[in-house]
Amino acid sequence: MEIVIIGSGNVATHLAKALRANNITISQIYSRSLESAQNLANIIGSDFTNSVSKISRKADIYFYAITDDALLSIIESIDIPNAIHVHTAGSVDMEIFKNHVNYYGVFYPLQTFSRTKELHFKDVPILIEASDIVTENQLFKIANTVSENCLKANSTQRKQIHLAAVFVCNFTNYMYTVGADLAENSSLSFDILKPLIAETANKINFLTPKDAQTGPATRNDKKIINEHLIMLETEPELQKLYLEISDQIYKMKK
Amino acid sequence: MEIVIIGSGNVATHLAKALRANNITISQIYSRSLESAQNLANIIGSDFTNSVSKISRKADIYFYAITDDALLSIIESIDIPNAIHVHTAGSVDMEIFKNHVNYYGVFYPLQTFSRTKELHFKDVPILIEASDIVTENQLFKIANTVSENCLKANSTQRKQIHLAAVFVCNFTNYMYTVGADLAENSSLSFDILKPLIAETANKINFLTPKDAQTGPATRNDKKIINEHLIMLETEPELQKLYLEISDQIYKMKK
Repeated sequence: MEIVIIGSGNVATHLAKALRANNITISQIYSRSLESAQNLANIIGSDFTNSVSKISRKADIYFYAITDDALLSIIESIDIPNAIHVHTAGSVDMEIFKNHVNYYGVFYPLQTFSRTKELHFKDVPILIEASDIVTENQLFKIANTVSENCLKANSTQRKQIHLAAVFVCNFTNYMYTVGADLAENSSLSFDILKPLIAETANKINFLTPKDAQTGPATRNDKKIINEHLIMLETEPELQKLYLEISDQIYKMKK
Repeated sequence: MEIVIIGSGNVATHLAKALRANNITISQIYSRSLESAQNLANIIGSDFTNSVSKISRKADIYFYAITDDALLSIIESIDIPNAIHVHTAGSVDMEIFKNHVNYYGVFYPLQTFSRTKELHFKDVPILIEASDIVTENQLFKIANTVSENCLKANSTQRKQIHLAAVFVCNFTNYMYTVGADLAENSSLSFDILKPLIAETANKINFLTPKDAQTGPATRNDKKIINEHLIMLETEPELQKLYLEISDQIYKMKK
């Protein structure tokens, strides 16, 4: 089995390394940036190109790990209808492939990938969707090789999980940036918040997030909430967010 | 050295257990609820009472681990001016003790405590403030016994860190509750979001939260943002939050 990876960004990099580490051959990396294609190709020992016309036509599976906006035009320009074509996006419908190739699917690794941050790919949930049962089996075979956490999800479910991921990952990380700024404004290191961040994430393995909820909003402690709003007076947008999230927490606990 | 703990809630419970585990004698637990005082006293092998007049007068240090609102009235009713009195609150000024006792301070464990969730107290940062250097040394001596992460912080710094903690812990946990609801609405288990939650928290040990930020708002991906807003149409408050946090993330990355 031969694989081509279209893309060389965060997802492409982590996926390519995970496949390679499990002895799955990647024959080629394509990227618009030759340098970026070459960098990734060097890591995994594959061929590379930045020209669509030079993409290998012999592969069994083409993985598209590129930005959502770039997907359609590149699908249209690669004309290899009888291979399997899959994208790795959380929010793009599988049917984007429909009129272009015969076998297609989605291989969505539900994780936050930054290029320089290594992670344990075996734990990454992979959500699989496919045009037909043969393709589905093929995708599960690959997915099960790189991860211990593979499951079937249709496009609606996957989009909903992607939305959930924005809340638990992107918005959570934004809360960390606010915390870091506030700590540094008071001449304390962000480091002292790290045990709290770790425990907050760890707790939900033992309690539901609803049961794990603590803090002034949970207790409807108006005195502290008002003090905090005053402390945020120079940052009206943060002040507004503080109030709105506190309201939501209070409603949820009630 | 003898210690009395006023309170039997989450903080009191974790603190009492940590002190006990490090062979510091707790002579008595006070709580308005006799049952709650007794439960904690049984765990750590101490005396207990629910009557202020029966609080031991012989202790060296009195820890007040109770709600902020209850603090002042109980400080006023305990008349033992020459012992050390400390509270464990993030947002209460140290000077609350000023006109009532001679030696006082703050012993703030920066962590989210739920009674049933065990944790490694040695990692919990303890922020110390004291009325005088002798009291400060005494508090550091105890703090260093239970934690490897003790530091001095004045009331202004502590309040700021408490505000930061609301963002990185309470608001983050709220994001988890939203994620859990969204996952379950699409018939998927919240469990599949847990590796993402763990990695999001883990990443900031390697990257600044600003560098770790990923997701549609970071890329200003209006197509996905709009799809997500449509998916949240039945929950206008969440929709509003989604938009506001996305705006903040985009501004931050720009």
